[in-house]
Parts: sequence; structure tokens; C-alpha cells
Amino acid sequence: MTQSENLKKFEAWIFKQSAYTMALAILNFDKTTIAPVAGNPYRDKRMAYLAGEHFSIMVDPEMVKVLKELKEDETLDGDTKRAVELYYKGVMDTVCIPKEEYVQMRELFNRAYDAWLEAKNKDEYSIFEPYLKEIIETKRKVYGYRNSDLPLYDQMLDDYEPGMNQEKFDTFFSAIKERLVPLIQKVQEAKQIDDSFLHQTYPIDKQKEFMDSLLKYLHFDETWGYQNETEHPFTTWVCENDCRTTTKYILNNVSSAILSTVHEVGHATYEHDIDDKYDGMILSEGVSSGMHESQSRLMENYLGRTLPFWEANFPKLQEVFPEQFKDVTAEDFVKAINLSEPSFIRTEADELTYPLHVLIRYEIEKGLFNGTISTEGLNETWKKMYKEYLGVDVPNDRVGILQDVHWSDGSFGYFPTYALGSAFAAQFMIKMREDMDVDEALRSGHYEKCVAWLKENIHKYGCRYSADEIMMKATGKPFDVNAYIDYLEDKYTKLYNL
Amino acid sequence: MTQSENLKKFEAWIFKQSAYTMALAILNFDKTTIAPVAGNPYRDKRMAYLAGEHFSIMVDPEMVKVLKELKEDETLDGDTKRAVELYYKGVMDTVCIPKEEYVQMRELFNRAYDAWLEAKNKDEYSIFEPYLKEIIETKRKVYGYRNSDLPLYDQMLDDYEPGMNQEKFDTFFSAIKERLVPLIQKVQEAKQIDDSFLHQTYPIDKQKEFMDSLLKYLHFDETWGYQNETEHPFTTWVCENDCRTTTKYILNNVSSAILSTVHEVGHATYEHDIDDKYDGMILSEGVSSGMHESQSRLMENYLGRTLPFWEANFPKLQEVFPEQFKDVTAEDFVKAINLSEPSFIRTEADELTYPLHVLIRYEIEKGLFNGTISTEGLNETWKKMYKEYLGVDVPNDRVGILQDVHWSDGSFGYFPTYALGSAFAAQFMIKMREDMDVDEALRSGHYEKCVAWLKENIHKYGCRYSADEIMMKATGKPFDVNAYIDYLEDKYTKLYNL
Repeated sequence: MTQSENLKKFEAWIFKQSAYTMALAILNFDKTTIAPVAGNPYRDKRMAYLAGEHFSIMVDPEMVKVLKELKEDETLDGDTKRAVELYYKGVMDTVCIPKEEYVQMRELFNRAYDAWLEAKNKDEYSIFEPYLKEIIETKRKVYGYRNSDLPLYDQMLDDYEPGMNQEKFDTFFSAIKERLVPLIQKVQEAKQIDDSFLHQTYPIDKQKEFMDSLLKYLHFDETWGYQNETEHPFTTWVCENDCRTTTKYILNNVSSAILSTVHEVGHATYEHDIDDKYDGMILSEGVSSGMHESQSRLMENYLGRTLPFWEANFPKLQEVFPEQFKDVTAEDFVKAINLSEPSFIRTEADELTYPLHVLIRYEIEKGLFNGTISTEGLNETWKKMYKEYLGVDVPNDRVGILQDVHWSDGSFGYFPTYALGSAFAAQFMIKMREDMDVDEALRSGHYEKCVAWLKENIHKYGCRYSADEIMMKATGKPFDVNAYIDYLEDKYTKLYNL
Repeated sequence: MTQSENLKKFEAWIFKQSAYTMALAILNFDKTTIAPVAGNPYRDKRMAYLAGEHFSIMVDPEMVKVLKELKEDETLDGDTKRAVELYYKGVMDTVCIPKEEYVQMRELFNRAYDAWLEAKNKDEYSIFEPYLKEIIETKRKVYGYRNSDLPLYDQMLDDYEPGMNQEKFDTFFSAIKERLVPLIQKVQEAKQIDDSFLHQTYPIDKQKEFMDSLLKYLHFDETWGYQNETEHPFTTWVCENDCRTTTKYILNNVSSAILSTVHEVGHATYEHDIDDKYDGMILSEGVSSGMHESQSRLMENYLGRTLPFWEANFPKLQEVFPEQFKDVTAEDFVKAINLSEPSFIRTEADELTYPLHVLIRYEIEKGLFNGTISTEGLNETWKKMYKEYLGVDVPNDRVGILQDVHWSDGSFGYFPTYALGSAFAAQFMIKMREDMDVDEALRSGHYEKCVAWLKENIHKYGCRYSADEIMMKATGKPFDVNAYIDYLEDKYTKLYNL
């Protein structure tokens, strides 16, 4: 076929796929936010069927041929060339899987999510364990079809963070362990910060009132963004101009919903700010999980936990909660929300201990796929590792192994990117601070100036360039974990007067 | 093919269709409740595409053949026979339409909804008018493919209420006009009821607190039911064990959200109570729009506006709003929520004037399709008719022609079933009161006994039988509009001491 015939087919195929991707994103958002649970079995089966329809479109033999031809076509423009490469990889990783097994796997994920939720609500790991086991077996089988020479877990890591593998992550986490574990100990031995005022009673409707103001400050606009509530906050990018975040309000914790929202808005803003010219195609997505997490954690930690950010927002918070904050200054508040203390819940962990939560998950995943760790008794393994790395006694599985949703949909290899993203963010921040007066922008209510820098240097590219390329373009340097560790050392040494 | 081969194909085809029906129901619920508006153009196009995929499955030539064979198969059991007939009619009414036109029509409906919402928000009929015009032309064209000898509007009426047509509706509405218009006049001349206490300030969060209690009383269970808020309350039946309702809270109107909720729960309960053996197939739906509306209006008016209902619920309402109801009795409250006064908004109209709101829409629809009424200046036609039938001066289009969503998705022929449903309900109530002590059940907090009667006599059948057949089975009599008018005469004569 001619190039123009191929491109026409390519475009039509992208549109068809995008309809299913969008529908499945909305169905999943619906399922995890509002859908009545008794409807799960009916919906789960049909969602899996629709995922199968999407599968069939993806692996359409005619399109495999078109993609191959386009892949070898030297005359394509750069955007199209990159899109073809990414689609081609996706198709090759999929076409090898028998459709029936693919649909069964999707249905398994749906059922496993239901079981995970039930297990978590009842604090019974045994409800979830058989699903976890089946998911691991299924992933093993499905990846087996790829016929790759790489170790299984390396393939999974590469899926979420192209170019990464166990060797690189081992090096990354070694550096973190080596320099952060002693720092965490020193912080624990230092005089503790008082954050008790964060844990008074904060009526939910009042928290929501503050949130409305905060979302405006963050330029999260309801014409393209939406916020709902869930047990486990997340962001779904449904389609162009439709980014959904969720949060969780806790009556005796005023900062949890706030910081989780700043985090999720980071994800949503990234997706929203991708160049419109990529609308509806693969380039219009964040380039990797680590890059995504770098944007959410940059907003949450590197902007949202700073004094200038709260110089702008604390007066409103004080206005909404005059009693609770009557003797508290913005400085006190910022100190309190930066307090470091080993704890059970990853998403509520402080910045310093956070990477160790991720490290535990990384080591468990490695073990599960290398055969050294079993799903049986994994709740106990979990507790042992939390004791070893963070020195805490996990009281139950609800706040232990059942806290995270990820494994219920087979997202193995995802967790490590959370720590990686935090590290990416450190380097981006150094450059952002060179280029503009970040503190002044935050203090004066011009958060959009920070967003503009991120858009110009990172967001707009979508996945037009790889994460490595974006790091080079944005900062002029390759990724280096030390920027992250230096930042944490500096921040916590000052905060605790070490 | 053998019967068993045909039935196997039939079953697989039903499953496939049901996946798309479910997905489109959720996508539509999402669109009309929470989806960010800037995403509309992207989503609208893809929803139309998916509707096209559904279309292709529906009109699959192999299945048309299978359905024809099954239709002539005398040995099918009654359930399957009825299902085949209903599917066959649906397919025949669809297969004649060119797919491209079908998809365009679906996309038009999506866009028209967006335009209607904008027009309503801005109070500008001119924004919606071109869409309305295009929808009417499209409906005319699409119905044209059916090659039916029946007048166009008769075909539309029959789609929502099989067996009905203009002649029958004319007779129905004549009887209503003849006996109700004089009654409405007498009521207006009588001493008016004081309902001013309903219009104090009722904080929304407190209204929601009462609603939680009311939903429990109504046995609307969150494992299969869900309630959200929208400008225009409605119910979506997503799938088995998943019925969604919406409501609208008004700060200075305590009864609006309550009564609209009882109404929508009527719809949801009907769908939920259909016999499980019909799960996932066409029999598992309400049989007609009129029958559906009979269940919602039965709950809203024949149960929800009675003293025994409020003997059970008023104490809670008083507890939530002690100030507002300190000098009000349950009797006062029930009188107030039954006050009759001609008004602008159909969904907020009292029981007595309600059918005239419907009559106006019926006459406009007839005119639009018979060519005697034009979309141009229809907002003015609307105002004239409200003046003529209800004696009110409609102040703007927002509370006039733009108040209802129905025409934006081409639902012409739907409105008349609202009045018909109210009339069906009158006959069901006579029989229910013969069979059980309705008042005692309501008063003693056993609403579920009324629901059980409805389930046993109406709900469980789904569309296994026609509306006429269900009326005969449930009441032993054919439909007769006089039961409805007698009921209204009796009720309002007593209420106003006429």
C-alpha cells in the first residue's frame, strides 16, 4: 500500500481504539467510584468482553501489516514515526496472546479488584490471596507468549518505565538505602515536631470548602477536571479535556486530603497539558509511570509542602478552621506537614520514609517473580519487612498488604516508578528554580507560572520523547539519583536541626 | 440451522449486545452527571462510534436469519418466544437504517444534549433551536426507512407505548381535559392551602441527612442502587443490580428533592425487581414507558403524598429540621405537598395540573410532526399554550421550552406516557388497596410490603407480557382512564372541601 493509504488506515484504527480505551477508562472509573457492588459480576463480564473487542481491533492482521510497513518507512515525519513505534510495540506485545486468554485475564482483574476490596474491608488477606496467586500465574503465562530473553520482572519494569530493569533499580535503591536509612535514624533520634493540631476534628464539609479554594489556586478547572471521593485516591485520564481525580477526606486529619489532591492534580495537569496536536493518539499520554509520578510528587512535595505555597493558602485554611488553627502559623503548619515518622501507609507516608515503602514492594515483587517469595503468608512477610526497614509493627493486613490496589489488576513493576518519579522531580526542581522564582510565584498566588514551566519543559511532549530524552531536554543532564538524596538530606537536616 | 444452534447464537448475540448497552448506559450516565464539559466533543464522537458498533451487532445478517427462523419456530418456550418477538421488532426497525446515518444521528443527539444544556444555562432557545430542527428532520428520515403505513407520530408513540397511537391518546386527553380543567378552576377559586413553611431555608446537607433515612425506608439499597445529583432528576438502569437515580436539592424547597427521589426510586425498584431469570436479556426491562411511569408516579403520588407515608417519615423530618417544622403537623405537611397551583415546571407540578403539562407537550409534538407547528418561535408557542391551558405567564425559556431534556435526544412520543402512567397507577392502587392494608404498611414502616405487591403483580414480569396484559393480570380489568380522573376528583374535592 502507499504511504497515504497506510496513514489513512492508521488514523482510522487509532480512532477506533481510542473509543474503546475511553469507554473502558470511564467504565473503570465508574466501577471504582460509584457503581453499586451487586452489579459487579454482570459488569465485570461485559467489561472484559469489551476489552476483548479492543484487543481484536489492536491485533487486526491488516493493521499489523500496515504498522510493519509504516515502521520501515523512512519518510515519515518525526511525530508519526514515534507514534508508529509505540503502537507497534504495543501490538507486538499483545498479538502473541490468544484472545480468549486475554479476555479471561481482564475478567480476572475485574474480579480480583472486587475481592481485594472485600478483603480490605474485612481485613482478611485470605480472601484476596487466591486471586493474587492466579494473577501472578496469569501474568507469567501471558508474558511467556512474548518469547523475550529478558527475565520476567525486567519485562514488567520496562513496560512501566521503558529502559529500566532490576539491575538499574537495584543500584537506585542501594543508593537510597545507603544514604537515607541513617538519615531516617538520625531524624527519629532528634527532637520531634508537634503535628498534633493536624489531628483535631476537621468536619468534612469544611474540608471540602477549603478544597474548592485550593483547586482554584492549582488551576484545576472543572470544565476539564473532576474530583470525586474514594478509599484510595487516584487519577484517571479519560480523554482529551477530561481528567478525573479522587481524594479521601479523613475527619481527624486535615492534611491528608489536601496533599493527596495536590498529588493527583499533578497527574491530571500533566495529561491535560500535553500538546493538542497529539489529541486522540498514543503521543497524547504521559511517557512513563516514573515521569507521571515525578509530576504528581513534584506538585505534592516540592511545591505543596513548602512555606511559599502555604503563605498563599494558609490564610484561607485558617479562615475555614478558625478554632483549630487559632494559635498556629503557616510556619508551624509547614513543619507539621513535613514531619517524618515511619508509618504503615505508603500514600500517607512522609517524603523521607516514602522510598522505603516503595523499596519493600519492589523487593516483594522481585521475589514473587523470581520464585523466592510466595503469596502464601505474604501478609506476614510484609509485616517482617516493615519491621526491618521502617521499624514499625503493622497491626493488621488492612493497613498492611491490602492497603494498595495495584496488584489486583496485575500492575507489577509499577511501584518502583513511584520512587523513581520522586527522584526525577528533584532534578526538574533544580532547573525550575534556576529558570524562575518559584517561591515568589507560589507566594503570590501564581501557581500557574510553575505549571507553565512544567508544560513547556515536560508536559507538552506527551510521549513524543522518552523519559531520558525529556530529562536531558529539560535539565541538560542525565538522570542522577543523587539530586534526590541531596535534596532530602538538605531538607531534613535543616528541618530537624541535625 | 437446528433450534439448539439458533438458540446458542441467539444467546451469544444477546450477551454481546448487552455489553454495548451497558457501556453506553454508563457513558451516558457519566456524561449527564459528572463528566467535564470540555471533554464532550471527544467523548460524543466516540460514544456515537460505539453506538454504531452496537448497531452492527444488532443488524448482523446472520442474526437476522436466525431471528427469522426462531420467530417461526412453534416449539419455543413462552419466555424465549416473547424475547424473540421483541428482539425481532427491534432489529427490523433498525436494519433498514444505513449505519452511517445511524451513527450520525447518535452523534447529533450527543451534540444536541450539549447544546440544550448550554441553551438552558444561558436561557437562549436560539442556541438549541437549530439542533431541534435537525433532530426532527433526522427522525423523519430515519423513520421513513421503516416503510410503515402509519403516520409518523403514531409510530413514535408506539415505540414508547406499544399499542398506543394518536387516536387513543386524543381520547385519553379529551377525557382529562373535559373533567380536570373545570376541577382545576374550582380548586383555584377555593381557599388556598398554606405551604409557605416548605419554602424556608433548608440547608442541603441536612436535606441529605433526611434523604439517607428516607432511602432506607424505601428499601433503596446501596448495594444495587446509587443516587447522584443533577439539574434534571432521572433514573438509569445500567444493568442487573445497578440502578442509578439522580435528584436535585433546592435550598428553599424541602419537598422537591424528596418527592423526586420517591419518584425515581419507583423507576429503579421496578427495574430491580424484574425476575432474575430474565437477567441480561430483553425481558429484563420495564415493558413500556407508561408502565414505568406508573411505578414512579404510584410511589411518588399514591404512596409518597399520603398521610400514612408521612406518619412514618415526618418525625425524622422534624428531627432534622426542628426549627422549620416546630409548629407543623404531619397533616399540615401532607396538605402542603398536595397543594395544587398551576406552574411552569412539569417535574415540580402538583398531581392535579400535571397531566396538562403533558397535554401541552403532546399537542406540540403532534404539531411538529404533522407540520402544523414549527421549531421557529416554538418558545413563544409554548408560552401561549401555558397561558391557555394553565393560565400562567411563562417568564423565560429556561423554565419554559428548555426545561425538559427529552427532545435533545429525539425522544418524541415519550411525554404522553407520563400522563398515561399516572392513570395506570390509579387502577393498580385500587387493586393493591383491595389486596392489602396499604396505609398500615406505610404507617408502620413496612414500605417493602407495598413493593412486594408491585413486584408480584407487575415488576417481576419485566416485558414478558405487554402493558395491557399486565394490567389485566394485576387488576382483572382493562385500562380505563376514569379510575384516574375519579381518584383526582375525589382527592382534590376532599382536600379543598369543594
